[in-house]
Amino acid sequence: MLPTDHLGPAAGRSAPAPLAEVAPAPRRTPAEEARTLVACNRMAALATLSEDGAPWGSLVLYAALQDGTPVLCLSTLAEHGRNVTRDARASLVVGEADVTGDPLDSGRVTLAGVLEEPVGDELEAARAAYRAASPTSGLYGGFGDFTYYALRVARVRWVGGYGRMDSTDAGAYHAAEPDPVAAGAAHAVQHLNEDHADALLAMARALGGHPDATEATCARIDRYGLDLSLKTPRGSTETRIGFAEPANRPGDLRAATVELAKRARA
Amino acid sequence: MLPTDHLGPAAGRSAPAPLAEVAPAPRRTPAEEARTLVACNRMAALATLSEDGAPWGSLVLYAALQDGTPVLCLSTLAEHGRNVTRDARASLVVGEADVTGDPLDSGRVTLAGVLEEPVGDELEAARAAYRAASPTSGLYGGFGDFTYYALRVARVRWVGGYGRMDSTDAGAYHAAEPDPVAAGAAHAVQHLNEDHADALLAMARALGGHPDATEATCARIDRYGLDLSLKTPRGSTETRIGFAEPANRPGDLRAATVELAKRARA
Repeated sequence: MLPTDHLGPAAGRSAPAPLAEVAPAPRRTPAEEARTLVACNRMAALATLSEDGAPWGSLVLYAALQDGTPVLCLSTLAEHGRNVTRDARASLVVGEADVTGDPLDSGRVTLAGVLEEPVGDELEAARAAYRAASPTSGLYGGFGDFTYYALRVARVRWVGGYGRMDSTDAGAYHAAEPDPVAAGAAHAVQHLNEDHADALLAMARALGGHPDATEATCARIDRYGLDLSLKTPRGSTETRIGFAEPANRPGDLRAATVELAKRARA
Repeated sequence: MLPTDHLGPAAGRSAPAPLAEVAPAPRRTPAEEARTLVACNRMAALATLSEDGAPWGSLVLYAALQDGTPVLCLSTLAEHGRNVTRDARASLVVGEADVTGDPLDSGRVTLAGVLEEPVGDELEAARAAYRAASPTSGLYGGFGDFTYYALRVARVRWVGGYGRMDSTDAGAYHAAEPDPVAAGAAHAVQHLNEDHADALLAMARALGGHPDATEATCARIDRYGLDLSLKTPRGSTETRIGFAEPANRPGDLRAATVELAKRARA
């Protein structure tokens, strides 16, 4: 039988528990994480089946339709293009762009399903979305060896980093919204860490359940709140602080963070 | 029957031909390209087979042994780890890091083969290489659910960008050497374009077969030479200029480029 949890001498190590009660802080759902990764990138790895049934990986450029359906444009001159004409099963892996730090602690998502040629309005939407992601596709997309495909998503597996992972289904994936503040998140994290370390420490102490924190840096920010990495005399840990209201536009992040800083010092 | 070349109205467009004879300029072999991509990165996409035989893509951290054999460390808590215990066939896709410009015009390689558990000295080498690539693997690599794997490479498919692609086999892959100047190539390209545009233009005119070039930028540099993107009154094109001697150490690039600049102005 395969193990269901890490087995080993270090598996029991734990971070210091909060010393004070922490308000529940909402997080993006796995479906929102998946939609966000797909919306924020355009390069992915595609897994298809070679003639002998072996798995074949390749890099592809993709675009996403309004509901998150990924669109590809594949040539039968390429192995992946020939593969999908034989067996349309495929999966697409999208990872976070511009990862700094430990790449295993970064986000990625696998969308598995079947590739299908869109027709009619969906084909037009696919062409337009693809051209926005790859301006040169206006040229090569018209070559006779290229075909547009829509990935009919059946399974979604999201990994956010160490210990942050979950699965979701096509219904939840398509119904979810990409995080509207994701594009500016890296910049916001950098700004908070460079210019507002004192505010982050105040948040960690007053709102994050760690009144003994000696250092706090922002690890991630999203529409619902921020993840802080903390140092305390009892060891290192993370805590999450939720915004009073979700940020619905990129410009909302600033006000949401200022409100937290004020509340932390009240 | 599937087409063997691009079919379409734009497929016949061509760049201006050289006006003067150009000395043959060696390039990295596909095997060298593949070894270089593998040596310069540590994140890859892994394609494995799900229980129903469908292709499953995931992101993995890898290391490379001395002969370029990729080493993975997979957990059976993850779908890819369970997949390979059922069917060891896999392929690994490595792309260029830090791509600027059109991502479809960047390098990537697929290594396809079978995953096998290394034993004895190779297991020790695999652990050491993996720990160098992922310092935290000293911790999780010891968990009972993680297994080290070596990818026994059978097929190699390299794509360098538009129109630059080739296949090679395991023998050539393992025998080739990663380009020793690759790690500094992006910096060298930036430096040449920012500070030595005049020298690049002189090279394009005197050595690159385009005496009517009006602008030249360095697109790529490697141990054997440089690729220049040119503008001429007859249209845009590329030309390659070979170094007098291959650069065998990172520090050799400067002297090799200076020699080209002098020769171009002689």
